Amino acid sequence: DEESVLVAATLVEDAKEGRNLSYILSGKCVKSYIVYNNKWFRWVLYLAIAVILAMAACEYPAVPGMELPYWATMIVEFFCLAYFTVRICHAMTFQYNNVFFKDTKNVVVIVVIFLTFLDMICFIIWKNVATTGRPIRWSRFLRPLFIINFPDGKQIRRAFRNIRRTVPDIMNVLILFLLSVLLFGLLALKLFYRREMHYPDGSPYFATYFDSIWDLYVLVTTANNPDVMMPAYNRNNWFSVFFIVYVILCLYIFMSIVLAAIYNNYRRNLKNEIKSAVFMKRQRLAQAFDLLKVLRNDVPVITHSRWRQLTSVLLPTKSHVYSDLMMKILDDDNTNVLSKKNFLNVADLMNVHLSEVKDRTTLQEKLFPNLYNHPISKKFKMIVRHRFFRYLFDLMIAINALFIALDLDVADWFFLVVFAIEILCNLYVAGIKEYFNRFWYTFDFLVIGSALIASIVEKIMGRSDEELQTLDVLLVLRVMRLVKIFGSIKRFKVILQTLLNIGTSIATYGGVIFVFFYTFAIIGMEIFSGLIHYYGYGEKIENNVLTAFCGNEKLKDSFFYKDQYCGNNFNHIFKALVLMFELMVVNQWHVLTSGFVQVTSKAARLYFFTFHMCTVVIVLNIFTAFILEAFILEY
Amino acid sequence: DEESVLVAATLVEDAKEGRNLSYILSGKCVKSYIVYNNKWFRWVLYLAIAVILAMAACEYPAVPGMELPYWATMIVEFFCLAYFTVRICHAMTFQYNNVFFKDTKNVVVIVVIFLTFLDMICFIIWKNVATTGRPIRWSRFLRPLFIINFPDGKQIRRAFRNIRRTVPDIMNVLILFLLSVLLFGLLALKLFYRREMHYPDGSPYFATYFDSIWDLYVLVTTANNPDVMMPAYNRNNWFSVFFIVYVILCLYIFMSIVLAAIYNNYRRNLKNEIKSAVFMKRQRLAQAFDLLKVLRNDVPVITHSRWRQLTSVLLPTKSHVYSDLMMKILDDDNTNVLSKKNFLNVADLMNVHLSEVKDRTTLQEKLFPNLYNHPISKKFKMIVRHRFFRYLFDLMIAINALFIALDLDVADWFFLVVFAIEILCNLYVAGIKEYFNRFWYTFDFLVIGSALIASIVEKIMGRSDEELQTLDVLLVLRVMRLVKIFGSIKRFKVILQTLLNIGTSIATYGGVIFVFFYTFAIIGMEIFSGLIHYYGYGEKIENNVLTAFCGNEKLKDSFFYKDQYCGNNFNHIFKALVLMFELMVVNQWHVLTSGFVQVTSKAARLYFFTFHMCTVVIVLNIFTAFILEAFILEY
Ligand code: NA
Repeated sequence: DEESVLVAATLVEDAKEGRNLSYILSGKCVKSYIVYNNKWFRWVLYLAIAVILAMAACEYPAVPGMELPYWATMIVEFFCLAYFTVRICHAMTFQYNNVFFKDTKNVVVIVVIFLTFLDMICFIIWKNVATTGRPIRWSRFLRPLFIINFPDGKQIRRAFRNIRRTVPDIMNVLILFLLSVLLFGLLALKLFYRREMHYPDGSPYFATYFDSIWDLYVLVTTANNPDVMMPAYNRNNWFSVFFIVYVILCLYIFMSIVLAAIYNNYRRNLKNEIKSAVFMKRQRLAQAFDLLKVLRNDVPVITHSRWRQLTSVLLPTKSHVYSDLMMKILDDDNTNVLSKKNFLNVADLMNVHLSEVKDRTTLQEKLFPNLYNHPISKKFKMIVRHRFFRYLFDLMIAINALFIALDLDVADWFFLVVFAIEILCNLYVAGIKEYFNRFWYTFDFLVIGSALIASIVEKIMGRSDEELQTLDVLLVLRVMRLVKIFGSIKRFKVILQTLLNIGTSIATYGGVIFVFFYTFAIIGMEIFSGLIHYYGYGEKIENNVLTAFCGNEKLKDSFFYKDQYCGNNFNHIFKALVLMFELMVVNQWHVLTSGFVQVTSKAARLYFFTFHMCTVVIVLNIFTAFILEAFILEY
Repeated sequence: DEESVLVAATLVEDAKEGRNLSYILSGKCVKSYIVYNNKWFRWVLYLAIAVILAMAACEYPAVPGMELPYWATMIVEFFCLAYFTVRICHAMTFQYNNVFFKDTKNVVVIVVIFLTFLDMICFIIWKNVATTGRPIRWSRFLRPLFIINFPDGKQIRRAFRNIRRTVPDIMNVLILFLLSVLLFGLLALKLFYRREMHYPDGSPYFATYFDSIWDLYVLVTTANNPDVMMPAYNRNNWFSVFFIVYVILCLYIFMSIVLAAIYNNYRRNLKNEIKSAVFMKRQRLAQAFDLLKVLRNDVPVITHSRWRQLTSVLLPTKSHVYSDLMMKILDDDNTNVLSKKNFLNVADLMNVHLSEVKDRTTLQEKLFPNLYNHPISKKFKMIVRHRFFRYLFDLMIAINALFIALDLDVADWFFLVVFAIEILCNLYVAGIKEYFNRFWYTFDFLVIGSALIASIVEKIMGRSDEELQTLDVLLVLRVMRLVKIFGSIKRFKVILQTLLNIGTSIATYGGVIFVFFYTFAIIGMEIFSGLIHYYGYGEKIENNVLTAFCGNEKLKDSFFYKDQYCGNNFNHIFKALVLMFELMVVNQWHVLTSGFVQVTSKAARLYFFTFHMCTVVIVLNIFTAFILEAFILEY
């Protein structure tokens, strides 16, 4: 009987937390499941995933200064993988085997762990036996799968599920779009090829069908507008009609339809997600109810004593008073027992914070009650709470802005002290707990606190070699103070509040994009690392054969070199991630592509095309769909 | 009494057509109103607006070969304005004066007509009296107001009303966004100024606050990414964080929020529009009912005889049978009279096509009944209607595509004849009326028909001087044939059908964008025409002082000249409109801007910034909102 209370409590906890991992409802399995959900084990998992992803900085091609020998990174990797194995085996202990192996995410994790071990063994053999050829760690691009496929990455997995479900539905639009590009490519080839025109750099204009399609695909991303049109437009004004029709159709109409189709599917999937989450929650609560129920007049109910048993397991830190209060709230038909209908609300109730009144007194009130409640102190609190007090400090920020704009650094200590005093006043009045519950107060505290520390450090250390970097940090902090004024203007408050509310979801999409970035970055590093280097520009560097043209003679006369893009390369993970970001912003992506095409072959376009399709056309549009929906619901 | 029937009929007609112009409900005024709504007067108005807009091609700076002396364009303009005056005076005859002058659109038209006359007089005096300085036609940019402000441009006015109502609601987001740009601009200036870096062309990097803001605003449009980052990124990898944070915040988050806010407002406004349109319709129908009603058992109704009177005015071409049928449909409670509730449906019923059965026979059946109904003919019709017949011709299109791809023009006559035969078969089976009701049939007819005519013309005329242009037309038509295959693939049908359904609304937004383009083009021509010319490129042209650097020495060493953008100028209206389109596509707009800044001053940035804000940030986002909503409703 004690066991069934434990199982019921776990089911209620699942419903409260929105967990949907299945497990066997026996005492042993449930205990194992509770250990599995321990937050420390979860945080170690997050750490292990972060570490295995971060290894890319130390593995070849490593970030300069962070290189580690291959056995060192492999030992770290081994411990991460070992923890993953333990974790996944732990999950096996409380699940039926057929359920466990039917779950794709478990299978994916097992396969990736296996492939990574295989890759490590291959690499060690290759490294030590074969003396020629550069050994490749070919499994590294699979690492982000750990983020998605452990049950702990619920949010991000949901976003990926949404993408997976949306893609088939927008396929028709995408195929129609790509067919249109093929058709226009044929037309452009026929129209322009026989006129033998040239781009400004002398390269031929729409010379082959493949180039024709590529140029037009790039035009849909707008990256080569108007350059792609200019030779034809200069020849005959009417040729502009071709490009205008193409852009209107493929960019403005088709791309809007892609967004519309994605938005439509996103909303539908969201609705289904919510429905199934609610269903899952009710199912768990119903199971818990069945375990706890007692028949009273042939009606199954939960009695007061059963409820006490449940809450003593579910909320061990809370008092009996609290438990009775909860029961009173749930029992809205005043029968002194909980019907099934009553009980189904327990998870929602637990997610509402019922704060007990005694917590309201601030720390300073507890420590110095006489001082805190003294008339002078009360008068002071009244002043600080008055809106003129806030206006005064908003004015100080404005004056501070003026000083920054005019490059007057002398008064900075004065402003720092003034803002520090403001913080102390607010802290005194609001109390620590209340203070750090407010976003703008916390923001203020962090910015001014960091600035104070940095200023003191700078004062003590004196102007050292790194003076510029301390100054930069101070500068950023100084300008960030001005941000606070946005938070105090009423018309912006609702926008910023909305942004804060959807902040975690935005972070989820940040995670999704990171997964794509990391995967493509690793693949890109395997293909393109070491082909392009940044050595600087100028005559001296150009005269040295080794350093000229980004260290690769093939880039001579290329736009990539002329635009001084040598710094955009795949030579280590951070460079590669920045390059991914630049490609996501789209502009000049065809020039970046052309650089890597020039040092390899035209097949490299496939890599950049795939990245654009995945990240820009699909993920960014889903992100826009998410913002649209979130803003419409919140605003 | 006959008068009240006429008034009632007019009110019903208004409700059917969705007209909402107010007028006095007297016989004389209504007759005047009916004349005002005559479609010929309306088409003359459209023509006059088109002509006055087209005058920009002939006025200074005119399209080469289309120049007219100023008095010639002014005479044409005078007649257009005279017609506008007549039209607006006509509208005055059937409206109360206070209603007429309270209506903004009437006031705008009157003011624009007045200003244009004033401008014409000023110009004539300036031209003939003052001998120095170039006289300016300063009122020309107001011409698009005629499109919006005549009652006949209902659709486009509605779109503008939507924009006008949306802008105040998104102001907060836009201001917050612009303030963020200002703040980041300050930070960038502080961070980079003292490091004295340079762009690849040697120009200083974030040297002044104004330049700093400009560069960052351009970055939000992505047009100078990654160039704006490269100098700092090459100096220190960590500076990339600044740009990445900026782009994420200002581009991905703020711009998505702008779209969300616009979409939100668009939906709300659309709902209000529909509500008020429905209200207006019911109001007019209620008025009509009150004019026609008779009391029967103290209940106001419309009797059969009254209905006959109404329909004889409303639908003079239809028979009594048709009128009685309509009444029977409306009278859904079988009382043999129309209650008010019954009558309110009349406008909707009139918009449904009740085609009479006798129309179903095709023309060929009427002319040769024996031949058409002969067994062989019936067999033939069965074959043509069979899906294998369609598959056969789809296959022919695929083969045709192959021939085009392989540049085999020899078989083109064969394909033309084959497709012409297909058209004749379909025409025979479906009949003319049914044939031209189907989009893909009509499309086919136009494409093949034009190709046949062009091919015959080419055959007869022989390869003349303009051979290339005939060939181009044939080529386009040849490739367009392939489009038909999209229409016969099921998965694309629903997308294309949706596109066709929202086609007219898309055209409305095309009109809105044209209004912005025209206004900005005229203003741009007044400011920038003649400053940049296209003379070609190459050594010979660069050695001539007059033709070098787009004919303007200030463009030496500029990106504008290096990228060979001389053809993008304001030298006549068509060039200007193409330039507007390029600016709308955004890419390289800062280079285009820099060219015009170099030949004038940095103040020119204001023109390009305003264009970007109006067209890209507001109108294009509203267009996206429209597509989103339309697609979600239709798909
Ligand atoms: Na761009």
